[in-house]
Amino acid sequence: MSKRPLILVTNDDGITAPGVRTLISVMKELGDVVVVAPDSPQSATGHAITINSTLHMEKVTIDGAQPEYSCSGTPVDCVKLAVNEILDRRPDICVSGINHGSNSSINVIYSGTMSAAVEAGIEGIPAIGFSLLDYNWDADFEPSKSFVKSITEQVLQHGLPEGVVLNVNLPKLSSEAIKGIKVCRQARANWKEEFDKRTNPMGREYYWLTGKFVNMDKGEDTDEWALENGYVSVVPVQFDLTAHHAIQHLNSWSLNK
Amino acid sequence: MSKRPLILVTNDDGITAPGVRTLISVMKELGDVVVVAPDSPQSATGHAITINSTLHMEKVTIDGAQPEYSCSGTPVDCVKLAVNEILDRRPDICVSGINHGSNSSINVIYSGTMSAAVEAGIEGIPAIGFSLLDYNWDADFEPSKSFVKSITEQVLQHGLPEGVVLNVNLPKLSSEAIKGIKVCRQARANWKEEFDKRTNPMGREYYWLTGKFVNMDKGEDTDEWALENGYVSVVPVQFDLTAHHAIQHLNSWSLNK
Repeated sequence: MSKRPLILVTNDDGITAPGVRTLISVMKELGDVVVVAPDSPQSATGHAITINSTLHMEKVTIDGAQPEYSCSGTPVDCVKLAVNEILDRRPDICVSGINHGSNSSINVIYSGTMSAAVEAGIEGIPAIGFSLLDYNWDADFEPSKSFVKSITEQVLQHGLPEGVVLNVNLPKLSSEAIKGIKVCRQARANWKEEFDKRTNPMGREYYWLTGKFVNMDKGEDTDEWALENGYVSVVPVQFDLTAHHAIQHLNSWSLNK
Repeated sequence: MSKRPLILVTNDDGITAPGVRTLISVMKELGDVVVVAPDSPQSATGHAITINSTLHMEKVTIDGAQPEYSCSGTPVDCVKLAVNEILDRRPDICVSGINHGSNSSINVIYSGTMSAAVEAGIEGIPAIGFSLLDYNWDADFEPSKSFVKSITEQVLQHGLPEGVVLNVNLPKLSSEAIKGIKVCRQARANWKEEFDKRTNPMGREYYWLTGKFVNMDKGEDTDEWALENGYVSVVPVQFDLTAHHAIQHLNSWSLNK
């Protein structure tokens, strides 16, 4: 590459989260970095966008000379603002994360981190979402760095197939314990919800959403298997949601009587 | 069917929206209806869930004897509350909508209506999201009724393939002008954003997100084509987002040097 790539960095834990600060430090080794990230945590926002409210953004300086913008919206809003209002050319890649916590298997659907990557993909920008399997604010991101760097280098070198972005999850292990990188499919899993029902001081009932992750997929080609066995998982994710295999079946119905 | 099916109804425009009231009236012809819907508009919330805040719900009566619950959360929260806290057995089907406005093509990603249907699908419940191509609050839902009814009857009769829910969009046309129902794939399209930048009375800049829908797909098997040509579009939607076709390609990279 003759000139340094332009790298857009975002996340869903907020612009000050240690995960995104780590991601920025790695990306500065690879290109010119611009950060556009939420001003507050936006976990589990999915692909939400802000249409019934206004958006604010502010140029900020946190830990280096790279341009950074703190934005009032969702991760998807951040990508839209970056592409349309901030950057003067298309970024060569968009990276999102490193999320504090897993976005493997069905979590991809709820994830703000991955929705930012998907939004970039919809705009035709190669994109990767990175997540570490550690929800703690002071999680150790050091072992993730070399994998984040090498996967990003591969995408800068090869590009990505049209309509595909990457969902990368990193096990909570030391560098030595991580066995390598595996390309996987999304495991079939869901959350078994357990609502925690309480009563407020005024006597009114309310709920906290909690739940238990249930992996129903015994396949050894899944992201869950890879992570449980010490690998970094890479799942190619698409945003054409059509279940093409079901079209023929539906056409056998009497839809037009 | 020996006993009447149990039908869970939700939406993203809020429990008082004319679209959901129409959907309820149609579903009461088909089974026993329970409504769990947001207490306020939740358009474009995508697959957001409420994890950093509490949830409230209230039993309400609006226009009939069917049990109805107004909930403080997102459409996905409503489905989770319904299945885990409200219903005493699994619903036979979950229907969401009728949305005031299109959820065709890429809009499926941003749509609260469709995310509720997808959430039901993740729980293993057959599910359909319905949307009318008219954003107005006083949109005419009458021509939609017979199509909503017949598609729901077909799903109750046949079930749906595992991991598949339906995204149904209805053109803004009279009953006579609607030509029929077409099973389609999601058109390749996106939004060209145009941020409307303004200055508030205190001199601070802010933005409104606006945009123009761009259909880049000339295929005659897409939802956009069907809707433009007077048909109701039915797209089977999956929540395994794996781009299976890309796995082989990624395995040709030097991910493990």
